[in-house]
Order: sequence, then C-alpha cells, then structure tokens
Amino acid sequence: MLPGSKGGFVLDPRLEAESLPVAWLGLCELRLRDERRWPWLLLIPQRPDIEEVHDLTPLDQAMLSFETNLVSKALKDLTGCTKINCGALGNIVRQAHIHVIARNEGDPAWPGPVWGHGVREPYRREELHQLAEKIKSSL
Amino acid sequence: MLPGSKGGFVLDPRLEAESLPVAWLGLCELRLRDERRWPWLLLIPQRPDIEEVHDLTPLDQAMLSFETNLVSKALKDLTGCTKINCGALGNIVRQAHIHVIARNEGDPAWPGPVWGHGVREPYRREELHQLAEKIKSSL
Repeated sequence: MLPGSKGGFVLDPRLEAESLPVAWLGLCELRLRDERRWPWLLLIPQRPDIEEVHDLTPLDQAMLSFETNLVSKALKDLTGCTKINCGALGNIVRQAHIHVIARNEGDPAWPGPVWGHGVREPYRREELHQLAEKIKSSL
Repeated sequence: MLPGSKGGFVLDPRLEAESLPVAWLGLCELRLRDERRWPWLLLIPQRPDIEEVHDLTPLDQAMLSFETNLVSKALKDLTGCTKINCGALGNIVRQAHIHVIARNEGDPAWPGPVWGHGVREPYRREELHQLAEKIKSSL
C-alpha cells in the first residue's frame, strides 16, 4: 500500500492543503480548514474513486449521514453558531467530501454561501491547533 | 389540523413559492424549483420545528439520507449532469430543507455555488410540469 493510502484511497492534495487532520471516524477522516472567517470542517470518506455520495454503498451512506450529523451537532454546540451549513459540491475537487461550516448572522458572506467567497484568512498556528483539539474533544 | 399541515408541520411559504410538488417520499416532500438555469430539487422533511438536520431523530436522519441519495442518483441519471451539488444551508429560510442540484461544466455559476447567484429564470409552464413528471417517474 502506498504511503497515505488506505485500501487504495489517497487524499486529494487540494483537500489536504490548507487543512489539519482532527480525527479518524469510522468512515471519514475529519479535517479542519485553516480559515478563520468560519469554523469549517471537512469529512472525507476513505473510499477510492467516489465522486457522488449516492455512489457509496448503502452502509457507507448511512455511516456518512451518522458521522456528518455527529460532527454538525458538535460544531454547533461548540461554537454556538446561528446555523450550520452542510454541503457536498465537488465542482472543483471531485473526490467526495462533505463541508460542515459554522455560520453566524453578519459573518463576511452572510446569508450567502461561503464557497468561493473572498480570500481565505488563516488562523494563527496555535489557534488552529487549539480549535482542532477542542473539536476532537467534543466528539 | 390546519389545511396544509401534517402533524403540526406547515411548509414555509418561501419554500412553497417558485416550486412545484413532485412526490411524497417517506419522510420528505420532494419539490422542483422553477429555475431553468439548473435542475434543482428540494427535499423538505415533514417534521415541525426542525432547523438543523442533526436535530431530527436518528431514524429520520437515516431516512433523510436514504431519500436524498435516491433523489440525487435519479437526478444525475436523468440529466447526465457533471456533478450533483447537495446542501442544507438554511441561512434565509430556517425550516430544514435539502437542495439537490444538477450542475454542468460551464453553467452560469460554474464552478461556484448556485445559491444567491444572479436572477432566477423560470421554465415555460409546460416544461416545468414535464420535468416534474420525468423526475417522479425516475424515482
């Protein structure tokens, strides 16, 4: 098996970039985007060659729903945000991945979507690692 | 029970506007947005007072995942689109609803998200009803 692979799965380098691993769930790797404008998590099912969620097996679809909702509730409880935005788009990076984003009334893109909005603002390195730890503890 | 309600559930008038009912699934009403730029479906769980998908019961979460993936696969097969975009945002309309949208390379918002992009273009009335029928038949 190649380094970084898991049963033929290799994380797309564009998903790996600008994000930090938080936890391994049953199906997904959970990662935190280095983007301080919005607390922004990514779930990436560890399955090769999947572009659409509906192409996962029924069991994996159920797992993904469970893990996404677990992470969504944890992020809402941790941040006290106004609304969770959850999405699977993949127009640019085709490897299946789910976004879970904490949105607040009046944030820089409110009430529009965050994808493609303005320029990323990274955290201070320490802040990023502390947030990742808090998220991990809250799961 | 009020007209239009189902166990206390009343569809938000902003979701009802500019869309056509397609089918009743086990949990959700499926509706087609009257928006010809992108084939755009909405799933609305028939449960009162739910804003976040993670606040549904575990059984309803599983049903929603099943119904969303069923609709997503049907829409992709029917349209032959490049990519399905699926999302639960709710920044404007808080009643929980899932978007399932057929995206094509080079469409007016590609590769960005469709929410809030430009001005809605309605179908001809006949076209809208025909598409709704095709979607219903494909489920």
